[in-house]
Amino acid sequence: MKTLILISHPKFEDSGTQQFLKTSFYSLDDVKYQVIDELYSSSESGQIDVDKEQAAMTDFDRIVFQFPMYWYSSPASLKQFMDDVFTRNYVVANRSLKTKELGIVVTLGDSEADFQAGGKEQFTISELLRPFQAFANKSGMTYLKPFVVNQFGYKDPTEKEQLLVAYLQYLSAEMPLSLENREQWLVARLQATKEGKADDQVQAIDLVINSLEDQQATVESLKQDVKMIRDQEE
Amino acid sequence: MKTLILISHPKFEDSGTQQFLKTSFYSLDDVKYQVIDELYSSSESGQIDVDKEQAAMTDFDRIVFQFPMYWYSSPASLKQFMDDVFTRNYVVANRSLKTKELGIVVTLGDSEADFQAGGKEQFTISELLRPFQAFANKSGMTYLKPFVVNQFGYKDPTEKEQLLVAYLQYLSAEMPLSLENREQWLVARLQATKEGKADDQVQAIDLVINSLEDQQATVESLKQDVKMIRDQEE
Repeated sequence: MKTLILISHPKFEDSGTQQFLKTSFYSLDDVKYQVIDELYSSSESGQIDVDKEQAAMTDFDRIVFQFPMYWYSSPASLKQFMDDVFTRNYVVANRSLKTKELGIVVTLGDSEADFQAGGKEQFTISELLRPFQAFANKSGMTYLKPFVVNQFGYKDPTEKEQLLVAYLQYLSAEMPLSLENREQWLVARLQATKEGKADDQVQAIDLVINSLEDQQATVESLKQDVKMIRDQEE
Repeated sequence: MKTLILISHPKFEDSGTQQFLKTSFYSLDDVKYQVIDELYSSSESGQIDVDKEQAAMTDFDRIVFQFPMYWYSSPASLKQFMDDVFTRNYVVANRSLKTKELGIVVTLGDSEADFQAGGKEQFTISELLRPFQAFANKSGMTYLKPFVVNQFGYKDPTEKEQLLVAYLQYLSAEMPLSLENREQWLVARLQATKEGKADDQVQAIDLVINSLEDQQATVESLKQDVKMIRDQEE
């Protein structure tokens, strides 16, 4: 599965959060990214090559819009990109995005807890992202549950590590993020790290993989038991 | 009351709807407009003078964002303007927009009837405009009921005339648009048209004004009657 991250951020290089996330997805071969602001600023005319951008999207199974929330939406560059590249012909007539998934990675400066009825911001993140959900609906894409990065600056190192794993899974694991899909993802990642390692390291990694697979077998068997008990109760 | 219309449209001069609306508000002295796209394209650097734009807003009591719906939001230029001009300092620290009203005039290419749960677009216009409502909430502005122009191209001349009157009221009448506020608005407009007219024309206009005021008095008295009856019933 291949993922394209479209990043909208007027100061991508200066953003600690964005740079932290960037170091992580470098390790994934099937994940590519594009900073939309750089795409526009590197063009002399301020126009981008729409045909090229449309063609570039063909290869990917998952498109992820990644941006800081500015006035309850993405920064203007993502909107410009959508208005330019996602022509009616491309999206509606040719259904070119159909069968792809649409993910959203949104970073918040304010606390996520403020985003609810009665809270300071009054509306939930889900409500504020409706325009993107409506776009997924129109284009036939599968809308993934948005990945919210809540006040990154206040997180301690352990929280940041957990965030990173969850983020990598959001980019490259099969959806939905069930326990099974997350374990399969972890095993695949571990298999990949074996390459070029010394024998004793490979053995250690295999031990972890076996242990994970054993656990997964146990979970499977427990699930069967629970199902049997439930069936008998009905 | 003074109104500023901020228009976001990449092809303002070519848009029949926008040009139609423009001819109408020319007649209102207290309504000014600004095409955001022209503001940016007329600047050599592509940057706008933020201080000047912030200062320009001071005079106005009602700010209206006017745009065609592109991918369930405004075109990118309005977002760029918001990100540039509505700095956190201006909006949140100094509360510079507090006490102003925020109106939205949105034109739709698709049928408004598609915008509902179970409809083709799945979400209502109200839901899709949440980011603007959240902005009004944050800035202390009063959010006005959006003015939706539904498939302008399919309207007949009578419908277009009605649209125009409703639009002019949205721009310059006191809110909410009750019968009383709309009649007061009409009388004020008629009084203004008397200037420079011949005596017989002035008499004719006065007749209409008197008739409107009589009607208003009748409505007032009927309302009193209804209230009395209701009070007795309780």
